[in-house]
Amino acid sequence: MQIVHDVHDFEACRSSYLPKIPLALEGNPEHRPVAPPEPVSLEASRCFPHLGDLPSVVFTGGSASSRSALRVGVILSGGPAPGGHNVIGGLFDGLQRAGVAGSLVGFRGGVSGLLTNDVRELEETVVHGYRNTGGFDMIGTGRTRLETEAQFSKALEVARERGLTGLVIVGGDDSNTNACALAERARAAGSPLCVVGVPKTIDGDLRGQRIETSFGFDTACKTYSGIIGNIHRDAVSMRKYWHFIKIMGRSASHIALECALQTHPTLVLISEEISRRELALHDLVDHIADVICYRGNRGENFGSVLIPEGIVEFVPEMRALITELNEALVAHAGELAALETLPHKREFVTGCLSPAPSGLFRRLPREIANQLILDRDPHGNVQVAKIDIQRLFLELVENRLHTMTQRGVYRGTFSPQTHYLGYEGRCAPPSNFDADYAYALGLTSAFLLRDGLSGMMATVRNLARPAAEWEAGGTPLARMMEFNRRHGRDVPVIRKALVNLEGPVFQSLQSQRDHWSRTTRFRYPGPLQYFGPQEICERTTLTLELESRR
Amino acid sequence: MQIVHDVHDFEACRSSYLPKIPLALEGNPEHRPVAPPEPVSLEASRCFPHLGDLPSVVFTGGSASSRSALRVGVILSGGPAPGGHNVIGGLFDGLQRAGVAGSLVGFRGGVSGLLTNDVRELEETVVHGYRNTGGFDMIGTGRTRLETEAQFSKALEVARERGLTGLVIVGGDDSNTNACALAERARAAGSPLCVVGVPKTIDGDLRGQRIETSFGFDTACKTYSGIIGNIHRDAVSMRKYWHFIKIMGRSASHIALECALQTHPTLVLISEEISRRELALHDLVDHIADVICYRGNRGENFGSVLIPEGIVEFVPEMRALITELNEALVAHAGELAALETLPHKREFVTGCLSPAPSGLFRRLPREIANQLILDRDPHGNVQVAKIDIQRLFLELVENRLHTMTQRGVYRGTFSPQTHYLGYEGRCAPPSNFDADYAYALGLTSAFLLRDGLSGMMATVRNLARPAAEWEAGGTPLARMMEFNRRHGRDVPVIRKALVNLEGPVFQSLQSQRDHWSRTTRFRYPGPLQYFGPQEICERTTLTLELESRR
Repeated sequence: MQIVHDVHDFEACRSSYLPKIPLALEGNPEHRPVAPPEPVSLEASRCFPHLGDLPSVVFTGGSASSRSALRVGVILSGGPAPGGHNVIGGLFDGLQRAGVAGSLVGFRGGVSGLLTNDVRELEETVVHGYRNTGGFDMIGTGRTRLETEAQFSKALEVARERGLTGLVIVGGDDSNTNACALAERARAAGSPLCVVGVPKTIDGDLRGQRIETSFGFDTACKTYSGIIGNIHRDAVSMRKYWHFIKIMGRSASHIALECALQTHPTLVLISEEISRRELALHDLVDHIADVICYRGNRGENFGSVLIPEGIVEFVPEMRALITELNEALVAHAGELAALETLPHKREFVTGCLSPAPSGLFRRLPREIANQLILDRDPHGNVQVAKIDIQRLFLELVENRLHTMTQRGVYRGTFSPQTHYLGYEGRCAPPSNFDADYAYALGLTSAFLLRDGLSGMMATVRNLARPAAEWEAGGTPLARMMEFNRRHGRDVPVIRKALVNLEGPVFQSLQSQRDHWSRTTRFRYPGPLQYFGPQEICERTTLTLELESRR
Repeated sequence: MQIVHDVHDFEACRSSYLPKIPLALEGNPEHRPVAPPEPVSLEASRCFPHLGDLPSVVFTGGSASSRSALRVGVILSGGPAPGGHNVIGGLFDGLQRAGVAGSLVGFRGGVSGLLTNDVRELEETVVHGYRNTGGFDMIGTGRTRLETEAQFSKALEVARERGLTGLVIVGGDDSNTNACALAERARAAGSPLCVVGVPKTIDGDLRGQRIETSFGFDTACKTYSGIIGNIHRDAVSMRKYWHFIKIMGRSASHIALECALQTHPTLVLISEEISRRELALHDLVDHIADVICYRGNRGENFGSVLIPEGIVEFVPEMRALITELNEALVAHAGELAALETLPHKREFVTGCLSPAPSGLFRRLPREIANQLILDRDPHGNVQVAKIDIQRLFLELVENRLHTMTQRGVYRGTFSPQTHYLGYEGRCAPPSNFDADYAYALGLTSAFLLRDGLSGMMATVRNLARPAAEWEAGGTPLARMMEFNRRHGRDVPVIRKALVNLEGPVFQSLQSQRDHWSRTTRFRYPGPLQYFGPQEICERTTLTLELESRR
């Protein structure tokens, strides 16, 4: 089916943007080790014996010589993040600089394109049409992972057929773990294929010693903050709505935290804090209701509550409930299906749970309880991401306020609105920061492959400094792995970086949030700007600025 | 309670923007009649006997002399629209030019501030802090209207107490009708108060012979279009979601139409067309399902459907159902309340309806039927704006696709997502167009009041041309009135301008939309830009461009 791209003036203007290039990535830079290679952990050397003790490397301007032949494939994996097309643009240009123009193919639809050998030739005209655009539509994306030995073999077979010497996998923690495993197997099989990972995720949780941020986080946060700012302006203009705003970000609360620092909401929940303080649902509800009451009794019947999407799994009692529900729903699937009405189903499920979860389940709003029973994934598990969190909080808060009104404690009015910010941020046109950063990651990947460095993640650092000063290089993926014992085997994983409650970002929130609740201190960042004054178009996130001041 | 305005860099940059000023509004322009005054209609002269046969006027550069004393009040009324603060900015500056600095007060919280004599003195420092910002928070807004004679008297009394010679009411059709009625009563009472209306509404339905558009429409449409573009990019990247997007716009479909022309959705529903063609709900559902099927069978399991918020009242059978429901719910309120369960309530209501509405009610998804019964306004009527339209269509389409799958007609997969675009657009920072237009309307209001012209709407025209060429003046509000016979009286109303199905805007949609459905022709307008190249920062809506070409 035909997909015609009707170019909007915005895109036409944006396509001529030239990403800023770090000095270290000009020309055909040479790599040098950052430090002598440290030995990797015992588990890592067991799991990736052929990758050896690679050092981290950085590039320094120069004129390295190219390898004789390079043919490279690229994969976009998982949910889209603004900047993906610029990674490919940078990769394409880097390969050109290395003297191997016309050597890039994209696998369509993520890893599954690699397994089915489904490619798009990425020629100049193709790549150029996507420069500085959002989305992953140049080659598509998918959620398939390499898991079985058959899949790994098939991947290497396709790489051999296509004569690939390099593969760039752009993705999150899982995809980068996959990249490392494929690099290992390629070496073990004597394949010439080098594999490089690129850190992508709007969630901001792919972060570590040598990864300051993933690309996409900046644009997504700015997109959501702009919208939240507009909602704030509506709140203070109308003075009669409370806005409950759920924000995308699978597990960690980085996005909610950054958006809060940008927009100064009345309230923001941070999952990691809830987990640390072992708060119950009613603690959160009481806190929200208390703030609504405090403000309402002073005539301010408006405000905002930012809620990170992943919160449910961080509330200990909710996590316990979901765990028991998953067991019960699978164990009693037949009996449950036989019950005709929802009240009967709920009653039955309640009976399957131990006292505390059962009590919590009974106290949940009926619609949420139904959702927990009905919306199950193919394995019969509760679909946490689908739970209507903002409605859950809203209904519980409403009940609480009702009680407070009856007791004469609360004298305000409560008109709530709910919002979910998600899909509008994942594919926004990349901010100048993400356009530059992703492009630099693409260039870096090209040079890593040129130098035959496999099992590396492309890393670009000093990101809070001007782009010219960024440091670019590679970090061995094996060094990022932690190992989980599963079914008697050590399984490598890159641990998601949660919000650090001792870090400067959360500390900044903590020092301000009481003011935001008691007075109104909304900020209005406006929509993401690409062409304007430096202080609004070239600044990155407060998260990155605060972290870099440490 | 303290409201501290924590200024974001974006706002700091934006505050120095200087709205472009039409040549005709430079200096202290003089007014001249556009044509000899035409006699107003019989009803209008009966309803507004003291306003007389005013001509429309335009301003031409010059140096008119000021009236001796001017003291002006301003009211923001109804839902916020981007540019409201710039109307006040223009009004303030125009009064300064007329030599009466420091003579402006704002009534807080809309018309109710006038009735309670609650003002904010609008000094330079206050006004300056809000230049080019979104929202109505400088003085707030409200939905109170002047209805009773006591209210009109109170309004005139407060104006007299404050020594007002002028009042500017910024609002939609109702507020401007109110402005006209107050101007009439002021004249009748021998009050020196002149009243001027300013056309505000994001909905775009306050439009007529001399009103090309209301302020706010441009910014709201661009804000929503940017978000829809991002969602489109996600759709074509993931290739697995259908996005059902409800768009704010009380009654008319202007916003949905403009957003469609900007973003090229797979499908867009236009209420006015549905009404004209007398389409039933199942016609719409069949059409959507057919397009999903056509695409799904070709492997394209994604797309978008734009749905205007007001659609329900334009589907004849739904309108009939709601009318009967309103009667039944009021007539049988007691019996209904006595029934304990929702199934019983639904059953009971079904029995109260005549055959066609009753059949439709039975076919509605259960949750929507419940909503219709439960969510009622204080008069017992169904709250149309609260009906979860996107979910209504989604569920009916899902059912239809299920049948089509069983018949072997449809072989695709259907994963829907729903969105509601509303509050994020009403208070966005005004686009350059709206900043300029609203400012010009403010200046115009000042000059109308300076010249003692009462019962006028400030009008600025030639808006598709560069701002320098805009024509500014006033049009007698009485001339915009139509008269509805209610309780034996002629009641003046400004009729909402619906989408003209013979006009160039709808025609443009009609000539393109089949391509959008069969192929994918998404456009990505990006977030609203304020500082960039002219072709994206200075262009107004396609609606205005197309209308002006006639």
